[in-house]
Amino acid sequence: MVIKFPQENVSRETIWCNLKNVSRETMTRYKIIIEYDGTNFVGWQHQANGLSVQESIERAIHAFCGEQVTLHCAGRTDSGVHALGQVAHFDITQSHPPHQIRGAINFHLRPLPIVILAVDKVDEEFHARFSALERSYIYKIMNRPAPLTIDKNHAWHIPQNLDVDAMNEAAQILVGKHDFTSFRASHCQSSSPVKTLLQLEVIRKNVSRETFLDAENQIEIFARARSFLHHQVRNIVGTLKLVGEGKWTAADVEKALKARDRKAAGPTAPPDGLYFLHIKY
Amino acid sequence: MVIKFPQENVSRETIWCNLKNVSRETMTRYKIIIEYDGTNFVGWQHQANGLSVQESIERAIHAFCGEQVTLHCAGRTDSGVHALGQVAHFDITQSHPPHQIRGAINFHLRPLPIVILAVDKVDEEFHARFSALERSYIYKIMNRPAPLTIDKNHAWHIPQNLDVDAMNEAAQILVGKHDFTSFRASHCQSSSPVKTLLQLEVIRKNVSRETFLDAENQIEIFARARSFLHHQVRNIVGTLKLVGEGKWTAADVEKALKARDRKAAGPTAPPDGLYFLHIKY
Repeated sequence: MVIKFPQENVSRETIWCNLKNVSRETMTRYKIIIEYDGTNFVGWQHQANGLSVQESIERAIHAFCGEQVTLHCAGRTDSGVHALGQVAHFDITQSHPPHQIRGAINFHLRPLPIVILAVDKVDEEFHARFSALERSYIYKIMNRPAPLTIDKNHAWHIPQNLDVDAMNEAAQILVGKHDFTSFRASHCQSSSPVKTLLQLEVIRKNVSRETFLDAENQIEIFARARSFLHHQVRNIVGTLKLVGEGKWTAADVEKALKARDRKAAGPTAPPDGLYFLHIKY
Repeated sequence: MVIKFPQENVSRETIWCNLKNVSRETMTRYKIIIEYDGTNFVGWQHQANGLSVQESIERAIHAFCGEQVTLHCAGRTDSGVHALGQVAHFDITQSHPPHQIRGAINFHLRPLPIVILAVDKVDEEFHARFSALERSYIYKIMNRPAPLTIDKNHAWHIPQNLDVDAMNEAAQILVGKHDFTSFRASHCQSSSPVKTLLQLEVIRKNVSRETFLDAENQIEIFARARSFLHHQVRNIVGTLKLVGEGKWTAADVEKALKARDRKAAGPTAPPDGLYFLHIKY
């Protein structure tokens, strides 16, 4: 029997069940919370040119239980983008205590910079992507003249001093329900450019113990919405940077939003500083 | 003329001055504040088996101004130990604006994970090591079952849950003037094992934006003293971990301190979590 992956409209789990002659109904769905350093991956999704986060975890699950699964995640991340709390689900016929599954997958993920933080059994109505009520991202900027060492690949290095108050003020223009075409990647697959941004905050980070040094040099941009367009956060950050530099005003941001034209807004911020933080269900 | 480095009691600067026929008195002393990711260095000091932080910066200074210098630092760090605010000084015959020197050294340090955060002209009485009034270190622990991804090499991963309050209580026993023989590396070159620990605090880190996730899993140990013995902070951390696990009580820490015997205290914590934070002059 020859099996080709992927077969359209037939999940890998179903193929696996048919092969093994087990009922699809006996499968258990698991929700996993995942942290990863996206620096050296091609992104969440399978790509021909390198290793993806998805493939890495699917292989680890197969190595642990012998079952072929397809992971469904809350939101795909691009190459170089990190996750502190990505969520995905998968179905297997076997049932194990969640902490055992966590340990087994993490064992097989080594030495890749991906770990499963938590595993939960969920019912089959749960879908990592479609059940999500809110997603949040954080974008980290190191705002100082000196290049990065410890934070290399994990923050956007911007040497010129940014006006964080101006950035935060301009950010509030983007909060609410808008047509975000100006902040949308050309290859975005979302059915509509209209999204509701629930929160967008720009703050100087205040870390108690780091007050000696670079505390004032760390800027965090926090974004929360039910869902985002492709590159939406990075395009917003690239635009707010122009405000921080004094090149743009809040009025310019409003004009860019209303233009509904990607060329009207600022450039895309690099992936290094972006972290998929949390998904609320 | 054959020059051999290092010549005893003759600084590289003096040799350089003799070679170039310039007066030692015309030299300018610069203080630099340095950040580095110590993961892939053999430590601060020259070693035969790999690249040191000191050598890297000395080479960058030479590449920038053509002068041979010997860097003197506030405190040598071991392989794998990081610095957020190491301080060093060096003398050159040339005089440039500090920000130009910073830019030039950083240019020649690329792509190594070392940067000069700040440069200051100082008078010749200033000595990075001997003028220091206080030094502080921070030690980062990630206290969670899952292995590290983004923080790999930058924190000590301890899976079992630690009792931070107990650790902090036991830490207070070590504050003050004591004979720290029990927490001193066997090859420590300090003339006396008696040191005055000004502050030792163990806290769960509370980072505003990270409250969703691992905020509660980050532990920081902050230590401040005029000077430290070799491995003192790491040996203290390794001992406090025993308290956090419930294997030791505060009374056991006191007993270990009074024993004045390295074997009486806990093991040396790994270098990954240690950051040389700040030096006060």
